[in-house]
Amino acid sequence: MCTMSIRIEKDFLGEKQVPIQAYYGIQTMRALENFPITGVKIHAELITALAEVKRAAALANMETHMLPKKIGEPLVKAAEEVRAGKLLDQFIVDSIQGGAGTSINMNMNEVLANRALELMGEEKGSYFHCNPNNHVNMSQSTNDVIPTAIKIAAYRLSQQLIETMISLQSAFARKESEFDDVIKMGRTHLQDAVPIRLGQEFGAYARVLQRDINRIRQASTGLLTVNMGATAVGTGLNAKTEYVNRVMFHLKDECGIPVENAEHLVDGTQNMDAYTELSASLKVCAVNLSKICNDIRLMASGPRAGLGELKLPPRQPGSSIMPGKVNPVMPEVVNQVAFQVIGNDHTICLACEAGQFELNVMGPVLAFNLLQSLKILRNAADVFERFAIEGLEADRDRCRSYVEQSFGIVTALNPHLGYEVAAQLVKEAVRTGMTLKELILERGLLTNEEIEEILNPIQMTTPGIAGERLLQPTD
Amino acid sequence: MCTMSIRIEKDFLGEKQVPIQAYYGIQTMRALENFPITGVKIHAELITALAEVKRAAALANMETHMLPKKIGEPLVKAAEEVRAGKLLDQFIVDSIQGGAGTSINMNMNEVLANRALELMGEEKGSYFHCNPNNHVNMSQSTNDVIPTAIKIAAYRLSQQLIETMISLQSAFARKESEFDDVIKMGRTHLQDAVPIRLGQEFGAYARVLQRDINRIRQASTGLLTVNMGATAVGTGLNAKTEYVNRVMFHLKDECGIPVENAEHLVDGTQNMDAYTELSASLKVCAVNLSKICNDIRLMASGPRAGLGELKLPPRQPGSSIMPGKVNPVMPEVVNQVAFQVIGNDHTICLACEAGQFELNVMGPVLAFNLLQSLKILRNAADVFERFAIEGLEADRDRCRSYVEQSFGIVTALNPHLGYEVAAQLVKEAVRTGMTLKELILERGLLTNEEIEEILNPIQMTTPGIAGERLLQPTD
Amino acid sequence: MCTMSIRIEKDFLGEKQVPIQAYYGIQTMRALENFPITGVKIHAELITALAEVKRAAALANMETHMLPKKIGEPLVKAAEEVRAGKLLDQFIVDSIQGGAGTSINMNMNEVLANRALELMGEEKGSYFHCNPNNHVNMSQSTNDVIPTAIKIAAYRLSQQLIETMISLQSAFARKESEFDDVIKMGRTHLQDAVPIRLGQEFGAYARVLQRDINRIRQASTGLLTVNMGATAVGTGLNAKTEYVNRVMFHLKDECGIPVENAEHLVDGTQNMDAYTELSASLKVCAVNLSKICNDIRLMASGPRAGLGELKLPPRQPGSSIMPGKVNPVMPEVVNQVAFQVIGNDHTICLACEAGQFELNVMGPVLAFNLLQSLKILRNAADVFERFAIEGLEADRDRCRSYVEQSFGIVTALNPHLGYEVAAQLVKEAVRTGMTLKELILERGLLTNEEIEEILNPIQMTTPGIAGERLLQPTD
Amino acid sequence: MCTMSIRIEKDFLGEKQVPIQAYYGIQTMRALENFPITGVKIHAELITALAEVKRAAALANMETHMLPKKIGEPLVKAAEEVRAGKLLDQFIVDSIQGGAGTSINMNMNEVLANRALELMGEEKGSYFHCNPNNHVNMSQSTNDVIPTAIKIAAYRLSQQLIETMISLQSAFARKESEFDDVIKMGRTHLQDAVPIRLGQEFGAYARVLQRDINRIRQASTGLLTVNMGATAVGTGLNAKTEYVNRVMFHLKDECGIPVENAEHLVDGTQNMDAYTELSASLKVCAVNLSKICNDIRLMASGPRAGLGELKLPPRQPGSSIMPGKVNPVMPEVVNQVAFQVIGNDHTICLACEAGQFELNVMGPVLAFNLLQSLKILRNAADVFERFAIEGLEADRDRCRSYVEQSFGIVTALNPHLGYEVAAQLVKEAVRTGMTLKELILERGLLTNEEIEEILNPIQMTTPGIAGERLLQPTD
Repeated sequence: MCTMSIRIEKDFLGEKQVPIQAYYGIQTMRALENFPITGVKIHAELITALAEVKRAAALANMETHMLPKKIGEPLVKAAEEVRAGKLLDQFIVDSIQGGAGTSINMNMNEVLANRALELMGEEKGSYFHCNPNNHVNMSQSTNDVIPTAIKIAAYRLSQQLIETMISLQSAFARKESEFDDVIKMGRTHLQDAVPIRLGQEFGAYARVLQRDINRIRQASTGLLTVNMGATAVGTGLNAKTEYVNRVMFHLKDECGIPVENAEHLVDGTQNMDAYTELSASLKVCAVNLSKICNDIRLMASGPRAGLGELKLPPRQPGSSIMPGKVNPVMPEVVNQVAFQVIGNDHTICLACEAGQFELNVMGPVLAFNLLQSLKILRNAADVFERFAIEGLEADRDRCRSYVEQSFGIVTALNPHLGYEVAAQLVKEAVRTGMTLKELILERGLLTNEEIEEILNPIQMTTPGIAGERLLQPTD
Repeated sequence: MCTMSIRIEKDFLGEKQVPIQAYYGIQTMRALENFPITGVKIHAELITALAEVKRAAALANMETHMLPKKIGEPLVKAAEEVRAGKLLDQFIVDSIQGGAGTSINMNMNEVLANRALELMGEEKGSYFHCNPNNHVNMSQSTNDVIPTAIKIAAYRLSQQLIETMISLQSAFARKESEFDDVIKMGRTHLQDAVPIRLGQEFGAYARVLQRDINRIRQASTGLLTVNMGATAVGTGLNAKTEYVNRVMFHLKDECGIPVENAEHLVDGTQNMDAYTELSASLKVCAVNLSKICNDIRLMASGPRAGLGELKLPPRQPGSSIMPGKVNPVMPEVVNQVAFQVIGNDHTICLACEAGQFELNVMGPVLAFNLLQSLKILRNAADVFERFAIEGLEADRDRCRSYVEQSFGIVTALNPHLGYEVAAQLVKEAVRTGMTLKELILERGLLTNEEIEEILNPIQMTTPGIAGERLLQPTD
Repeated sequence: MCTMSIRIEKDFLGEKQVPIQAYYGIQTMRALENFPITGVKIHAELITALAEVKRAAALANMETHMLPKKIGEPLVKAAEEVRAGKLLDQFIVDSIQGGAGTSINMNMNEVLANRALELMGEEKGSYFHCNPNNHVNMSQSTNDVIPTAIKIAAYRLSQQLIETMISLQSAFARKESEFDDVIKMGRTHLQDAVPIRLGQEFGAYARVLQRDINRIRQASTGLLTVNMGATAVGTGLNAKTEYVNRVMFHLKDECGIPVENAEHLVDGTQNMDAYTELSASLKVCAVNLSKICNDIRLMASGPRAGLGELKLPPRQPGSSIMPGKVNPVMPEVVNQVAFQVIGNDHTICLACEAGQFELNVMGPVLAFNLLQSLKILRNAADVFERFAIEGLEADRDRCRSYVEQSFGIVTALNPHLGYEVAAQLVKEAVRTGMTLKELILERGLLTNEEIEEILNPIQMTTPGIAGERLLQPTD
Repeated sequence: MCTMSIRIEKDFLGEKQVPIQAYYGIQTMRALENFPITGVKIHAELITALAEVKRAAALANMETHMLPKKIGEPLVKAAEEVRAGKLLDQFIVDSIQGGAGTSINMNMNEVLANRALELMGEEKGSYFHCNPNNHVNMSQSTNDVIPTAIKIAAYRLSQQLIETMISLQSAFARKESEFDDVIKMGRTHLQDAVPIRLGQEFGAYARVLQRDINRIRQASTGLLTVNMGATAVGTGLNAKTEYVNRVMFHLKDECGIPVENAEHLVDGTQNMDAYTELSASLKVCAVNLSKICNDIRLMASGPRAGLGELKLPPRQPGSSIMPGKVNPVMPEVVNQVAFQVIGNDHTICLACEAGQFELNVMGPVLAFNLLQSLKILRNAADVFERFAIEGLEADRDRCRSYVEQSFGIVTALNPHLGYEVAAQLVKEAVRTGMTLKELILERGLLTNEEIEEILNPIQMTTPGIAGERLLQPTD
């Protein structure tokens, strides 16, 4: 390696070598050394959002006469390039890092400064002309720009998630209609209960997913409150009021997201409850999705030694050893994503509780987990819909045969014969192998016509007492 | 024990001895034998709510001519007695039990049946005259009455919690005013940052608690949707439509809570997301309260070897060995309650995810944890307010002295001298023991007047650039 | 209430009224006021263990000439009474409390002092003669006696748990033998895989439970290291070395548990990892038990619309509405206990992480959860064995019929026909309704004899290649 | 895109296009389409381990005359290349995927088959000559090779973690010696307690870390039990006994890890408790590390408005806005890693509990989290040692001055003056500003010499009663 390949940069702790071509600088180098933790880079959505924040800040600083145009204009251009996905390989700091995001912020400040320098015709590292701290970070602190960028990134991902969930929910609603006439045994405690229609079950799934969408949408609004101009601790030191107005104007304009500044910037800087709230709504959704997947996997169990009520579209050979086996891989991946989201929520809560005084320094692990949860939940919902729910079919014959074999219909006899007599009939039927009808007739408890009227499975799936007209009203 | 002290009851599985005086019966005895788990009885709030449900059902069954008045009227009276707190010692089943609450429901059905029998002048156990299943449980299933009762109990407790939280929030808001002029060092990363006012910090606490109140209130509305008339699996088998209308009328009337029946009763029976949603909001609140308590304990640390910024009212001698020691026991108990609520949320999510098909059979452990979380969070918030926040005092001198000793104010010099020069001044001040002002004067960087204008701590706690007029606007 | 019914006690914070008959005193009264949190009293096992600690300390203090016998001897007697379960109603402080257990310790110190005073013929509250702090708590701190008592209580409960788990494990091992010849379909992904014997499945359950026993036993040894003589921060201030030797002698002697003092008492006082380690082992066990219960509930699902491979002993009518329904209430209660234990572990970890410097002040919530987990896991394991596993039966016909219907046996054809051909046979069998054998014969792939040799289900449940001798060895 | 760039592959579900140069095949393509979830590829350590398993299997299959050498030998060579890190870009399936790892296994089977074909001079995709299922996967199932590979990878990473932890533990032990004479105030409840030496605190840290090492080492032994030859459900169908012996011989030989086959392969296939056990030990360690980091960050708080007892090596400028600020970024990153590990443990437990019957299909998410936890904990421990603990310094003057200012030393007066008198002295000292000594002398409670003997801070940090000889022994 020849000496030409590096440049030397300085900060108040000393000097570091930086690859001469690199747009990042000394503080990024320090972070690289300090935090070789996960090997996973910062989510691209966060980089994009931070570039938008930096662009808005540069514009606002120019407009309030703090930043000379000859510096500000190339900075804006550099930020626009990063927003457009350029220079992404220059963001090399690890997703989990100490310092509340200072290293992410400085990585960005350095990349923008050096790219601006390049645009200005200056050499990289000649920070006299454009300085990562004084110019790029002007009127800002890690403690306002990083939470703001996280919120913008999370908001965008949450809107994408909501859109995908709406689509998934519609798929369930379509199955509600499609399966409306599929009569099957309802099960409680995994034991035969009373008849139900498969469409009713899918209607229940559709409704809980609708509430999940509402919850996530509601929780995501918390992300719209940001803290630009808070600077270090929320007091706004070093940020002019006009700057704050202008930066918010540009940010909203650019992102197309109705972000507003917190009414109380100390609160906006100290508290991360927007993250825990959103993550909690994702967790509740994950719990519901996992339950639905469990049900579907059970109903699709078989083909011969399981329940066999549903048929999932075959997506891939299920076994490297068992020929012809096809597994419910789509609900399985949703289950796993649900577990990941629930575990991530745990991490998020721990990190949130660890905030102290004016700042929560655990921002990097918070962002890492929150953004991951949003992405994987969306991805899972998407493939779940397309590869599992859309093509899902019912085995109507199997469903019906369970109803015919089961004693669960005996419940309809309660109003007519009483719980104890009905219970004895079941015991007797199990013992003798006789049907309920045969027993009832043999004992003269009801006529054939009465039995037909009462033990009608379809009617049992709607409210009311089967054979109600046969009952004597009380006083 | 003489043979007179027991009676024999039967069900379809056989016979059991029951204490002759007991209002409960055979199924309660079975549950007692099956589930000797925690030793903790069912929450009294749940018993009360279930009695209300039973009363409403009896009224509705009479009105729809299903239940004769000679049975229904004593049943209503019995339910009113239980609601009023009588016979509480007859509810002996364990909080954690198999069977989705069947044992709670049957314990109630048996107590009401036997108390009604007593009122009718019949012997306990003579279920021909008033039967726990046929009469008390008429038109009902465990799967509709238990979730409904849990929701009513949880809704009441959540309203009590909200009321207490509002009071606690007001206490923080009062401290915001009281401490508005207490200047202190802001801290990020536990390192000296820039000045802030103690009132600003308490304002931030008050605001996050306000959002917690909003979240809990919002989540608690999910409890208002119940599933009466769903019976076994949500299809409404054995429940007349008129019965459902009447039972809801009586339930709302009696509870004074605007409960409504689910539009889709299969959904209302299958899904427990109202519990996870509420528990999640409690968890988010617990995380925030714990963070606040951590801050307060840190600020109150000392008296000599700590930060010593706050003084908590002394509540009890802190040590059995160290004379005169007083500990921050009130925030400590809030921390512990927070941990319990967070752990309970975990249990609730696990239980919720374990639902299968038409029912979540984990209802008992769900209710046990949810109701406990609601109660202990309320209790903790109550004593926290009264015994810690109300009498909380600031050590104004100590707070101010930190500002005077610290270098954090150097940040205000950035716009005037630049980040690098300011950083060098700090290093030099640490090295030489000189003050920042001395160094600046010595180096001729600013005049005395300029320094006074820029380094004004009070001004630093409000937005803007200290000494802004000294700056040259850019082009 | 007349003035005679109270006495006045003092401490350095002021005066309080105490019920005149009460053995507890002013500090217990303060705790009662400060911590009305759960309404659940301290676990009786912890009270017993603390009484043992206090007795050992009084003996040691007498032997080292610190405590006069005229005070020490009645104190020892009082401690023995409490250990024997007397005066249990005098321990009234809440399970969740601030102060790291100071209130539990002082409740005990006051009860013992007042009971000793009574034995000495003195009036309650006349602490000049026997003082809760100076005499009962001599050479001690909350910070050594409470952790020591928690560990003794937890150790005893863990040994009871291990004993019960051994019994449960044996029940599974018996079923392994009993079910050894029950051939059934193995299932992976809930899809038919290849044949297995039910005894093999129960053998797997027995083995994982054996490892759980080993893990719990291993983890429980961490409880044997206590920190008597550590006093306030582990440095042993105010505790003579001879006292420490004597107190450990008496404690071991009395408890019959091989407790040893920590080699490094600051470590022994600061760190709660013995609790997290034990709780983690309980959690791992809970996860395994829950999985086993899930399997058993699935295999026992039905009777007609489920798998129906197992029959659980009927324990109670399963439904208040569905006659004859019997639910798997015993595995259900184990599932719920497992969820509680897992949630408790979460609380324990949060509390443990919150330790600061020389002490973890979250001891009360730690003990509350750890002791509860130990108790409910034991109770659940006990009833699970007696009421579910002991009488568990297999439906051999049902199990076998699944094997006969399924295509899973096709896997045995791989070595003979290759994966692709076997997969095509399955597809063809599904399409045509023909059996695999018919298809193979029709296509001339194997002879009848070869098929009989290869497709032998019993042989498929043991290692090796079915029909191996039919294969051509390779070079 | 020209037609030459793809090839067509088939399986029993149909055809897919595969890039013509790709070593992976149709099943990898299916997985790519089905599981676009995290964007994170399989951990490289798992790929390596799986290659070793495949190599061992190929050797064993040749030796037992199942696999012709002309196929087996190139396969072995291909596996050796992958083990050496070649073809890593061909492993493209997502870390979270349905199917229990079938897609990982098939990705490997296809890459090895195609590389072997290449070595054999055949075209990629010409599986007649070397087939991913029949040849590469011979005698194997996903359900034995994937758990085995996960365990080997996890074992290796756990040994690296242990090594790093040992080094970190030694660093703490060195600080124990270095800080042995640094007297400081002990703190309980964040309140001044009694004196302690900083070395004692670091000794406590060193000891709990030692126990963590022991726990992780103990737990990692569970990984040494694998299930080769289990095939689909643990019964060993299609795996010759000689094959099992040979594959274990080669695996041990190659990995240098003493792996053994489970005595009961159904158990070994069904149960994932080795993962939960290991993860639990990581979690316990994470809790302890987080607590230590919290302490260190508190002790290093300041420089002026904090405790200022410790000085961490400065690693990077701490703020983008506050000049000269340096933050405790190394302990902060450890805290965050701890939270991630604890959250991952949660995911692992959820996934483990979700196992059903013969297999836990949640293997991919289990491996993803377990391997991540092992890696990031190691990485964090490594930089924590090198960048934080190694250069950690004490501010001896600051530590001592706290002792001198504090009243905590009053505890030493208890045996001489009693708890109440001592408590009054503290109150009086606070009120008047007098020192304890002045007050004691003024009141004639002790002589100057007695005070000097009793109130010696250094002596207070060792067991015993300060000024013990001044006490009157009791009878």
